[in-house]
Amino acid sequence: MALVIQKFGGTSVANVEKIKNVARKVIKEKESGNDVVVVLSAMAGETDRLIALANSATESPDEREFDSLISTGEQVTVSLLSIVLISMGYRAKSFLGFQVKVKTDQAYKKARIKYIEAKAIRRELKNGKIVVVAGFQGVDEENNITTLGRGGSDTSAVALAAALKADRCDIYTDVDGVYTTDPNVCGKARRLNKISYDEMLEMAITGAKVLQPRSVEMAKKYNVPVYVKSTFSEGRGTLVTKEDKDMEKEIVSGITYDKDQAKITVVHVPDKPGVAAALFSPLSAKNINVDMIIQNASLEGFTDLTFTVSKKDLKDAQKIVEEAARVIDAKKVQVDAEVAKVSIIGVGMASHSGVAAKMFSTLANEGVNIMMISTSEIKISCVIQRKYTELAVSVLHDAFGLEKEK
Amino acid sequence: MALVIQKFGGTSVANVEKIKNVARKVIKEKESGNDVVVVLSAMAGETDRLIALANSATESPDEREFDSLISTGEQVTVSLLSIVLISMGYRAKSFLGFQVKVKTDQAYKKARIKYIEAKAIRRELKNGKIVVVAGFQGVDEENNITTLGRGGSDTSAVALAAALKADRCDIYTDVDGVYTTDPNVCGKARRLNKISYDEMLEMAITGAKVLQPRSVEMAKKYNVPVYVKSTFSEGRGTLVTKEDKDMEKEIVSGITYDKDQAKITVVHVPDKPGVAAALFSPLSAKNINVDMIIQNASLEGFTDLTFTVSKKDLKDAQKIVEEAARVIDAKKVQVDAEVAKVSIIGVGMASHSGVAAKMFSTLANEGVNIMMISTSEIKISCVIQRKYTELAVSVLHDAFGLEKEK
Repeated sequence: MALVIQKFGGTSVANVEKIKNVARKVIKEKESGNDVVVVLSAMAGETDRLIALANSATESPDEREFDSLISTGEQVTVSLLSIVLISMGYRAKSFLGFQVKVKTDQAYKKARIKYIEAKAIRRELKNGKIVVVAGFQGVDEENNITTLGRGGSDTSAVALAAALKADRCDIYTDVDGVYTTDPNVCGKARRLNKISYDEMLEMAITGAKVLQPRSVEMAKKYNVPVYVKSTFSEGRGTLVTKEDKDMEKEIVSGITYDKDQAKITVVHVPDKPGVAAALFSPLSAKNINVDMIIQNASLEGFTDLTFTVSKKDLKDAQKIVEEAARVIDAKKVQVDAEVAKVSIIGVGMASHSGVAAKMFSTLANEGVNIMMISTSEIKISCVIQRKYTELAVSVLHDAFGLEKEK
Repeated sequence: MALVIQKFGGTSVANVEKIKNVARKVIKEKESGNDVVVVLSAMAGETDRLIALANSATESPDEREFDSLISTGEQVTVSLLSIVLISMGYRAKSFLGFQVKVKTDQAYKKARIKYIEAKAIRRELKNGKIVVVAGFQGVDEENNITTLGRGGSDTSAVALAAALKADRCDIYTDVDGVYTTDPNVCGKARRLNKISYDEMLEMAITGAKVLQPRSVEMAKKYNVPVYVKSTFSEGRGTLVTKEDKDMEKEIVSGITYDKDQAKITVVHVPDKPGVAAALFSPLSAKNINVDMIIQNASLEGFTDLTFTVSKKDLKDAQKIVEEAARVIDAKKVQVDAEVAKVSIIGVGMASHSGVAAKMFSTLANEGVNIMMISTSEIKISCVIQRKYTELAVSVLHDAFGLEKEK
C-alpha cells in the first residue's frame, strides 16, 4: 500500500460536474489499495473574481485581509469534493490550512511553508478516510491566514508529500504531461516520460506554466517523485525526478518561451560604482521584477545597460528609470515592448560543447536577431523580436531533434 | 468610553458599495469614542448560492462539509469590510470563528455556542483596532467548522456582546426597528421604542423575521441591551430589554403572522397511550418540525388530532402520517395547505382578562373562522384560512389600538 498525493488544478474543479470527475479519479486510486490525500485549487476564475472584489474596494487592499478573502476559493472546492466523495459511499474529510496545520511565515500573498503538522491527517488516513486538503493556504504562528502565491497549490501538494513521506505526488492538470515545448506552437512537440528537477525548474521559470517553480524546488529538496498527468484522460504522464544517466544523453530536453517581456535600455551610463543600484533599487521598491540584465563592456567610461521586465510593468518601470537616468546622468532611455524570450533547457548541455553556437546559428539562419543572451549551466535564453517567437521555437525544436525520443 | 457590538445583515453588505456604507456607520461609532466590534453576515444571496452548490452535488450533503462550505460567505464580507476600513485610514482586523475562538457543540447546521474565548479580540480592542467578526460560524473542540443556523449572525453578535460584557448590541437591518406588526400588511403599524425580551422572543417565533429567536433568548439570559436599527437611515430604533412597568400597561404589543403553515388532521384516532408517539416520532426522525398540536376531547374512545407543519414539509409529512395512521388504525388523514397563523403578543396579557375573547370576537365579526388556537402567558395564536391573513392582522391591530402609543 502506497501513500499518494493527488493535486487537481482550477480547470479540473471548475464546476460540480468536473468535481464529480475528480472524485472518480480519487476513488480509482483509493480502490487500487492506496491511501490518498487530495489537494485542490479554487474553481477556475474564482480566485480572480475574489481579487477583483478586493481591488474594487481599494487600490491596495490590506494584505492580511486580502489573503483571508482569496483563501475562500479552496475552502469551497475541498468541501464540495468531500461532499461528493461521501455521497458516492466513501469516507472523506476536508482540511483547511489551520486544520492541517500548514504553518507558514507571515509574508502575506507569497508566504513560505515553514512546516506541516500532519498528525491529524495521518490519523484520518489510518481511519481509512480520503483526506482533502485546501491548497494555496496556510496559517502563520498567530493563526492569521496566509496564501502561497499564484500556483501555490502545487507547492502545497509537494510540501504535503514531503511531510507525509508520500510515495508519489500526482499533479493533475489539463495537459497530459510535460512537453518538449508548447504543442500549440510546435506541432512536433513530444511528451517527455521523465525530466530532472533542475530542468523542470528552468522550464517553469522561463515560461512553461505546468508547475509552480517553488513546488519543483521543494520536490528536489525532499526528493519527491512528481507525476504531471491529465485530469481528462488516462496516461502515465511525465515523471519529474532526480537526474539520472538517461537524462544526460539528452543535450536539450525542452524549449520554452515567454512573450510577457519588455526591454529597457539605458544608454550612455557613466560606468561607476552605485549606478546599477540607483537604477534597480527604485524598481524593486515598487515590486517590479527585473528578469535579464546585460551590461556592455565599458567604452571610454560609459556603458549601456539593458534589462527586461514584465509587459504589464513597462509603463511604471519606464517612468522610474527615466527619473533615475536623470539622476545618474545617463544619456537616454529606450524601450521595446515587442520582445520575447526563447530558452533551451537540458542537463546534457553542461557536458556538451557547441550547444549555444548551434542555437545562435539556427536563429541566425532564419534571420532572427538576438538582442540579449543569458545562460546558466543547463539553460540558454535569448531575447528576440516577439513576432519571431513561434518560428524560433519550431526551428530550435528541429535543430536539436526533440521530436524523437533518444 | 463604551464597548459597542454592531451587527449588519446580508442586505447591508450585499456589495462593495454597501460595505463602504457600513464602514461609515462603523467609523461614526468609533469616532464617537467607543470601542467597536462588528459582526457580519454573508452578502445577501451568497449563502443560498453556496447551499444550492452543495445540493447540486447530492441530495443530502455531509453536514460537516456543508458547514465548512457555507461559512465562506462571512469570511468574504469580514475581509472586505476590514480592507475598506483600513483603506479609509482606520486600523481594523477580521476574525473568523476559529481565530476568535467561538467554541460550539458539534451539531452541524444548528450548532450552539458553548463559550467564546475573547482574549484575542480584547487585545486588539486595547490596541485601538476595530474588530470585524464573521457571524454565523464557530468551531467545535476539534476545530471543525460549525454554523449556527439561519439568522445565526444575530446570535453571534449577542453572544459576543455577552462574552465581552459590551454596553450594547446594535442589530442593523433593512427596517428601522421592531413594529407592532408588518408595515407591508398594515399601514397603521407603529415602530416600538422598547419591547421586552419575552415579547420579542414570541414575536420572533411566531413570524417576525427581524431577529433570530435564539439571539433573543441569549440576550435575555445575559441581559444584553439590544437595539434594532436601520443600516440605511438614522434613528434610535427599538430597544429590546428586560420587562419594566411601562410595558405592562400595553396589553398587546405586537401582532405577527406566519403564512408558512399547513394543517394535518388525523380523524377518528383510537384514544389510547402511545398514539401520539406513533404519529410524531417518525416526523421528528425525518426532521419535520411540528408547530401547533391540538387533540379534541375523546368521544367513545376516539379522538381527532390536528397539527401544523411548514408548507415545504407537507408532502413528506402527509406520507409519513398516512403510514402511521394505518398502523394505529385511525380512520383517515386530511390536509389543508391553505392556512396561516396569526398571533397577538403582549406581557400585559397575563394580568388582563378578556384579551382572548376580544381576539376571537374581532375575527368572528369579520367572518374569519378560527381553526386552531394555542396560547401562552403572553401570546395567543390562531390558525385561520390563509387568504384572511392581512384582514385579520389589520382588524386586530385596530381592535387593540396598536397605532397609538400608550
